[in-house]
Amino acid sequence: MPELIHVMNLSNEEREDHEYWMKEAMKEALKAQEKDEVPIGAVIVYQGRIIGRGHNIRETQNLATGHAEIQAIEAANHYLGAWRLEGARLYVTLEPCPMCAGAAVLARIETIIYACRDPKGGCTGSLMNLAQEDRFNHQTQVIEGVLDAACSQMMKDFFKKLRKRKKLEKLSTKTVDNADL
Amino acid sequence: MPELIHVMNLSNEEREDHEYWMKEAMKEALKAQEKDEVPIGAVIVYQGRIIGRGHNIRETQNLATGHAEIQAIEAANHYLGAWRLEGARLYVTLEPCPMCAGAAVLARIETIIYACRDPKGGCTGSLMNLAQEDRFNHQTQVIEGVLDAACSQMMKDFFKKLRKRKKLEKLSTKTVDNADL
Repeated sequence: MPELIHVMNLSNEEREDHEYWMKEAMKEALKAQEKDEVPIGAVIVYQGRIIGRGHNIRETQNLATGHAEIQAIEAANHYLGAWRLEGARLYVTLEPCPMCAGAAVLARIETIIYACRDPKGGCTGSLMNLAQEDRFNHQTQVIEGVLDAACSQMMKDFFKKLRKRKKLEKLSTKTVDNADL
Repeated sequence: MPELIHVMNLSNEEREDHEYWMKEAMKEALKAQEKDEVPIGAVIVYQGRIIGRGHNIRETQNLATGHAEIQAIEAANHYLGAWRLEGARLYVTLEPCPMCAGAAVLARIETIIYACRDPKGGCTGSLMNLAQEDRFNHQTQVIEGVLDAACSQMMKDFFKKLRKRKKLEKLSTKTVDNADL
């Protein structure tokens, strides 16, 4: 199994290149946030350009499979007219879940690059590493930690706002309840 | 982690019920076969009826994510207008891969029922068991071996025919090559 690489172990030039594309994935994450979805975004980069974009649409589309990575992979498949994405990179703001790590392996993605870890469900380094499981018929390279702090903060801010909104909703329900008495 | 159940350990009544729905998944597999796709089919059963069907469309749609289970889960999501498929069963003719096992867990499927094992990529019993991984926030029941022999034979016949066709194509190319000389 190849090793998981932290972006800080790469050259400055490589790190800057990965940060450039991760910012594009972050733009996708913001699209999700605008829809009140957990802000997770992804892009597929092939031969120096983006051939697929995606963001989390689980709640708005009522789709269990509506993860950013799946949307981006499917868009890239459509763009190339091919299910194989050999030589392509998947950039995503959060560590992939089992479904998305599996999809990247099936699509023959060359490298998965993610920002922050998901300690509860991440399957490319945290709970396990499905992208580098040598019993599967393909393995991908994995680079972690690209714009980690920025992507992590985006998630924290989202959940903080969500908790605040839920608290306010609860309070307003209580006020209505009291008015009813 | 709950245990993987073999259908032979269930009652006759339960086995017959599972076989009834697996036959529906087999109908889906035949649809894939008609398109020259590897014959894999799936259905989602909820409250005694099918709410999602799917078959392998990877080659015809050039879609890395075009597995039977993903199609069936998405169809069920659309049908219910909900990403949560709590209380639903996923029937599939071949053991799910990491992507599909992951999707079933994300969709909160109650039980995955499959026919034959996939020793090379199966992730609900063969290489690992992602559906019953207790570090994830949901686990499904898993029943294996329902119409195992019939589904396995369907796959074997498909690959046998494919090999025969490829051999004939090779021979016909050779004949053309010789004619060119």
